[in-house]
Amino acid sequence: MNTSDIQITPIQQSKINSVDFNNLAFGAVFSDYMFECDFKDGSWQKPKIKPYGPISLDPSARVFHYGQAVFEGMKAYKDDNDDIFLFRPDENFKRINKSAERLAIPAFPEDYFFNGLTQLLKLEKDWIKKGLGNSLYIRPFVIATQPAISASPANEYKFMIILSPAQAYYSGEVKVIFSEKYSRSADGGVGFAKAAGNYAAQFYPTKLANEKGYQQIIWTDASTHNYLEEAGTMNIFFRVGDTLITAPNNDRILDGVTRKSVIQIAKDNNIDVEVRRVSVAEIKEAARKGALKEIFGSGTATVINPIVAFSHGGEDFDLPKQEKSYASFFKEKLTSIQYNISEDPYGWRFKI
Amino acid sequence: MNTSDIQITPIQQSKINSVDFNNLAFGAVFSDYMFECDFKDGSWQKPKIKPYGPISLDPSARVFHYGQAVFEGMKAYKDDNDDIFLFRPDENFKRINKSAERLAIPAFPEDYFFNGLTQLLKLEKDWIKKGLGNSLYIRPFVIATQPAISASPANEYKFMIILSPAQAYYSGEVKVIFSEKYSRSADGGVGFAKAAGNYAAQFYPTKLANEKGYQQIIWTDASTHNYLEEAGTMNIFFRVGDTLITAPNNDRILDGVTRKSVIQIAKDNNIDVEVRRVSVAEIKEAARKGALKEIFGSGTATVINPIVAFSHGGEDFDLPKQEKSYASFFKEKLTSIQYNISEDPYGWRFKI
Ligand SMILES: Cc1ncc(COP(=O)(O)O)c(C=O)c1O
Ligand SMILES: Cc1ncc(COP(=O)(O)O)c(C=O)c1O
Repeated sequence: MNTSDIQITPIQQSKINSVDFNNLAFGAVFSDYMFECDFKDGSWQKPKIKPYGPISLDPSARVFHYGQAVFEGMKAYKDDNDDIFLFRPDENFKRINKSAERLAIPAFPEDYFFNGLTQLLKLEKDWIKKGLGNSLYIRPFVIATQPAISASPANEYKFMIILSPAQAYYSGEVKVIFSEKYSRSADGGVGFAKAAGNYAAQFYPTKLANEKGYQQIIWTDASTHNYLEEAGTMNIFFRVGDTLITAPNNDRILDGVTRKSVIQIAKDNNIDVEVRRVSVAEIKEAARKGALKEIFGSGTATVINPIVAFSHGGEDFDLPKQEKSYASFFKEKLTSIQYNISEDPYGWRFKI
Repeated sequence: MNTSDIQITPIQQSKINSVDFNNLAFGAVFSDYMFECDFKDGSWQKPKIKPYGPISLDPSARVFHYGQAVFEGMKAYKDDNDDIFLFRPDENFKRINKSAERLAIPAFPEDYFFNGLTQLLKLEKDWIKKGLGNSLYIRPFVIATQPAISASPANEYKFMIILSPAQAYYSGEVKVIFSEKYSRSADGGVGFAKAAGNYAAQFYPTKLANEKGYQQIIWTDASTHNYLEEAGTMNIFFRVGDTLITAPNNDRILDGVTRKSVIQIAKDNNIDVEVRRVSVAEIKEAARKGALKEIFGSGTATVINPIVAFSHGGEDFDLPKQEKSYASFFKEKLTSIQYNISEDPYGWRFKI
C-alpha cells in the first residue's frame, strides 16, 4: 500500500484554535482527523482519513457484548526544528498484532499502519506542540463490529487511529497499594495483551484503593499474591540498594516499551538490573532495612512515574527522597531521545 | 417509574415478514424495537423504546478502549394460549447489577428494567413464536459511552435491550477439552461477572480447540488447572454413578440461573447433588472405571447441552449413551416450566 492509496476527506475547518493547549485533561480532546480501516470479506479494505467524528454501529456489534477489542498507546514529539518523532513505533505495531492474535482479531498490515499513521501525523502536525512534556498522544485501536451476538470471533472489524494532544503528565504524589485480594489477570489469560477488558476489570478495585488514599494498585500474581507484577498502565521497577529489579514478562504482564528501554539504558549505564520475580516480602524487608530506595512506574503516558509510598497488609511504607534518583535519570535519558535532544544510540527515534 | 414514562417512537413498518423463523442463526436477526436508556449527570435518564437501528458513538467512547461493558442473556417463551413468560428474570436483573458493580458501572434501577422489558415485549409479542424450543432471546447490556480515553470509570453509559428470535439450539455432538494452559479468569478477577472482556478472552483458545475437533473448552482453575469450573457460556455438571456434581460458585465462575435451577430440581427429585470442587483426576478416574455416566452444560441459550466426549492430557474419553439421562430429565423439567406446560412449584415463571 502507498500513502496515496489512503482516501482523505478534508475537514471544513480546523478546531485547533478552540483548544487550550496549556490546560489539557488527558485523552479528552481529539484532533481534526482520524484514520479508519474496515475489515470485511476476509480482508482489510481501503483505509481512510476523515474528519474526527462519531461512528455508527449496530447495537449487536460484537465489541459491545464480548469485548473483542485491543489498542495501543504511543506519542508523537516535536523538536525545536519542527521535526516530528515517534519512539519505537515498531514495538507498538508488533504488540497490537500480538494482542490481536490473542483476541482472535486479524492482524493489521504493517504498511497500512505506518503509512496511515505517517499521513495522519503530517496532516495534524500543528497539533503537536514543541516543548519538553508536550506531545500528541496516539491511540490505535481495533474493535469487532460484526452485528451478531454469537460468542465467537467476529468477521468484521474497524481499525482506527485517533489523536489527542497531551501535556507533561503530573500525577501528584503517587502512593500505591500492593494487591492482596483482587487480580488483574490470570496465568493463561490475556494480561500480556492490551485487551480492552483488562482495563475495565481494574476500575472497581482501583476505586476502592483511591477511597483509601492510594492512587494506584500494584498488581500481584493472582495465584498467591506474593509476587509484584505491574500497575494499571505502567510496569514497575524497584531500586534496592543500587540494583534495579523488575518482574519478568509472562502471560500476565504487558511487555512495556518504556520498560524494555529502561532496562537497556540501565545496562548501558552500569546500573545492575535484575529481571526476576520480585516478592512482596522482599520489598517490605528491604524497606524496613532502609535498602529500598525507589519504586517507579514506566509507561508511555507518564514516561517514569516515581512512587512515594506503598502499603501492604495494613502497613504503610514511605520511600526516602533521593538526591540523584534513578527515576529522574531514566526520565531524562528517555525524553532526551524522544525529543531529539540527545544522540539516539539505539535507533529508537522514528522521524515522520 | 411507570411504563407510561417510557417514550416510544413508532416504527414505520415491521420487518417481521422478511424473517424466516424456521431458519434462524443465533443472534443474527433483531426485532423491530430496542430499549435505550442513557446515564449522564449522575443519573439514568428517561428511557426510550425506538426502532431498532445503529447507535452513534464517539471513537473515544470508553467501551471501545477499556471494555467497560456488561450484559445479560434471557428468553421470552410463548404458551399455546399466546401468553408470554420469562424465566426467573429477577435473577438476571440482580446479576447485571452485580456485574455492573464489579466493572464500576452504576446500577440500573429495577423498575426501569422491568417496565422497559415488559413494554418492549408487549410491542414485540409477534416475534415470540409458539412451540417448544422457540423463544425470543433477550439481550440487556450496558456500555460506557463517555468520549474520553482516560483509564478510569466513565461518567456516561447506555443501557440497552435488544431482542433476537431463536429456535431450539441444536449444537450437534459436543466434544470438549479440559483446559491445561489457557484460563478464563483469575481469583480476584471478573470471571463471576458477565463482563464483555471475559468472552473475547476465550475466542482464541476456543479456536485452537475447534481446530483439534473439540467444540468447547471446559475451563479449569487458572492456578493449577486441576479443577473443573465451567464452559464458555454454560455451567458444567458431572454425573458420577447417580450423583450429580458441579463446581461451587466463586469469583471465577458465573452464577448461572439454569445451574441453580438444575440443583433445585435435582434436590426435589431425590437426585444426590454435590456442589464442591471437581478435580480433573477424579473425572478421568471415574471415566476409566465406567462410573462417569454424563457430562452436561447448563445455560439460557441451550438449556441443557449433553456432552459426548472429553479430552485431557492427550487422552480422549467417550461418554456412554444413557437410556434415561439426567440431561434429558432436567431439560424436560425446565422447558415444561418455561413454556407453561407444567406446574411451577417454585414461582420461576414471570408472566408478561
Ligand atoms: C498494563 C500496562 N502495563 C504497562 C504499560 C506500559 O507500556 P508502555 O511502556 O509500552 O507504554 C501499559 C501501557 O502503556 C499498560 O497498559
Ligand atoms: C460464562 C457463563 N457461564 C454460565 C452461563 C449460564 O448462565 P445462565 O444459566 O444464567 O444462562 C453463561 C451464560 O449465560 C455464561 O456466560
